[in-house]
Amino acid sequence: MKTIGFIGTGVMGCSMAMHLLDKGYSLNVYNRTRSKTDQLVKNGALWRDTPQELAEKSDIILTIVGYPSDVENVYFGKDGLFSADLKGKILIDLTTSTPSLAKKIATHALQVGAVAFDAPVSGGDLGAQKGTLSAMVGGPLQFFEAVEPILSAFSKRVTYLGEAGAGQHTKMANQIMVAGTMTGLTELLVYAKAAQLDLFQVLEVVGASAAANWSLENYGPRILNQNFEPGFFAKHFLKDLKIALDEAEKMNIDLPATKEAYRLYQLLNELGYEEKGTQALINLWWGDKTQ
Amino acid sequence: MKTIGFIGTGVMGCSMAMHLLDKGYSLNVYNRTRSKTDQLVKNGALWRDTPQELAEKSDIILTIVGYPSDVENVYFGKDGLFSADLKGKILIDLTTSTPSLAKKIATHALQVGAVAFDAPVSGGDLGAQKGTLSAMVGGPLQFFEAVEPILSAFSKRVTYLGEAGAGQHTKMANQIMVAGTMTGLTELLVYAKAAQLDLFQVLEVVGASAAANWSLENYGPRILNQNFEPGFFAKHFLKDLKIALDEAEKMNIDLPATKEAYRLYQLLNELGYEEKGTQALINLWWGDKTQ
Repeated sequence: MKTIGFIGTGVMGCSMAMHLLDKGYSLNVYNRTRSKTDQLVKNGALWRDTPQELAEKSDIILTIVGYPSDVENVYFGKDGLFSADLKGKILIDLTTSTPSLAKKIATHALQVGAVAFDAPVSGGDLGAQKGTLSAMVGGPLQFFEAVEPILSAFSKRVTYLGEAGAGQHTKMANQIMVAGTMTGLTELLVYAKAAQLDLFQVLEVVGASAAANWSLENYGPRILNQNFEPGFFAKHFLKDLKIALDEAEKMNIDLPATKEAYRLYQLLNELGYEEKGTQALINLWWGDKTQ
Repeated sequence: MKTIGFIGTGVMGCSMAMHLLDKGYSLNVYNRTRSKTDQLVKNGALWRDTPQELAEKSDIILTIVGYPSDVENVYFGKDGLFSADLKGKILIDLTTSTPSLAKKIATHALQVGAVAFDAPVSGGDLGAQKGTLSAMVGGPLQFFEAVEPILSAFSKRVTYLGEAGAGQHTKMANQIMVAGTMTGLTELLVYAKAAQLDLFQVLEVVGASAAANWSLENYGPRILNQNFEPGFFAKHFLKDLKIALDEAEKMNIDLPATKEAYRLYQLLNELGYEEKGTQALINLWWGDKTQ
């Protein structure tokens, strides 16, 4: 069985790495904040001092960190993955990051005899815990067979979507859709409250119509119960929308509704809600800070 | 059994009236274009020459016409419903119209010894055919019991939401949500196509994630198959968004994402897609007329 290296043991990463341990893989771990690997080490993972060391001791290296700049750092920085001899190894970045960085990593990997995949996931912390994520995979098709069982350790769905960057592009398409359901849900509640309707009843009626969607079903009740804890961080959603809009601009397409969603989430982050969940958007209308 | 009057036998209205006939109600019908009542008359409905005459021969009067101005006309115009003696009768407007007009009709009805409900429906032509609409009802609670079985003849769900106007307000909240799913779906496809992804595959992946929604599931494939026939007319959606935004303005709330959706549908209508379905929005990017 292959030895896996895992970098980035935050809320998502820790759950995903635990599933790999459960499946019997040998696991090397590294994280910027070492304490976040404690639970994994207790369960048999081995701590490695740098990405480079981790890479040298592993056959397949998975990364899931915060921002594209963190990805850049883990791969190309001092003691980064590319400092190691990667010949014959497989790199998989699970971070939601830029398609162009995914391509850059893939090109660089080829030059040193390795292969790289981008495989951002959707499903949030709960999906990571339950092992029911959906992985969107870009990279060399002939190596997908080697990658698929590893991603399946924590995903119920692993989809190959094309060459390097295709996973990230698909995730961006996904986030563009979510921008629509989140702004729609928020504005529907703002309207319904102003119209003095019973909001729980409105959610029930709208959720059973052609307006039905996952955000309404899952975040609607949380909003009404004033639960703004992150299923998905507002700051990460803002990052994703920024990537999507930057890519759109590069491809010469205009996405006005997504731009508007980005503007609203930017405002939300500026108001101090960056550590809250995406459903906190309602606080632009209802929150103490804006009233 | 009560005698029902039905005004407005377009695509939706005709199916709904047919369900009432099927349930055994005596039916009086009126429509601006008489020929659209032919099928109903063949099935036992009686043609009435004016709304006034229809009202006098009926206990409960249902209306479903195009625009608020049409509603205004049917109720308050020459030979309109309010020209008749309405004492003891029940009026139900099924049109998606303005909450303020619903209140005006309700007030006027009370003054002449009648009661009025607003009960816009969602579910489209298919829901009307199958009798699986969702009716959102505003009006006097003590008469809801008399109204509920009639609406149930063509609805799988009949929800009482409050006083006159509450049905219309709930429908507006519903349309605000749909504005989000439709713009999100459209821009996700625009992005995914520009990124040269397999669009059917992207719809499948996104539709199985936290971005899942009814519009994507139902309209996504139609868009990819170039099927822009109306499930719901672009011109009617534009009308609904206009009402929602006008009401929002009256209530002093700003709905920027809905405004952006309105702007896009306005553009779509100006480009000549008003008789197409809401999913035709993609043609702002992909359509011949804009390329």
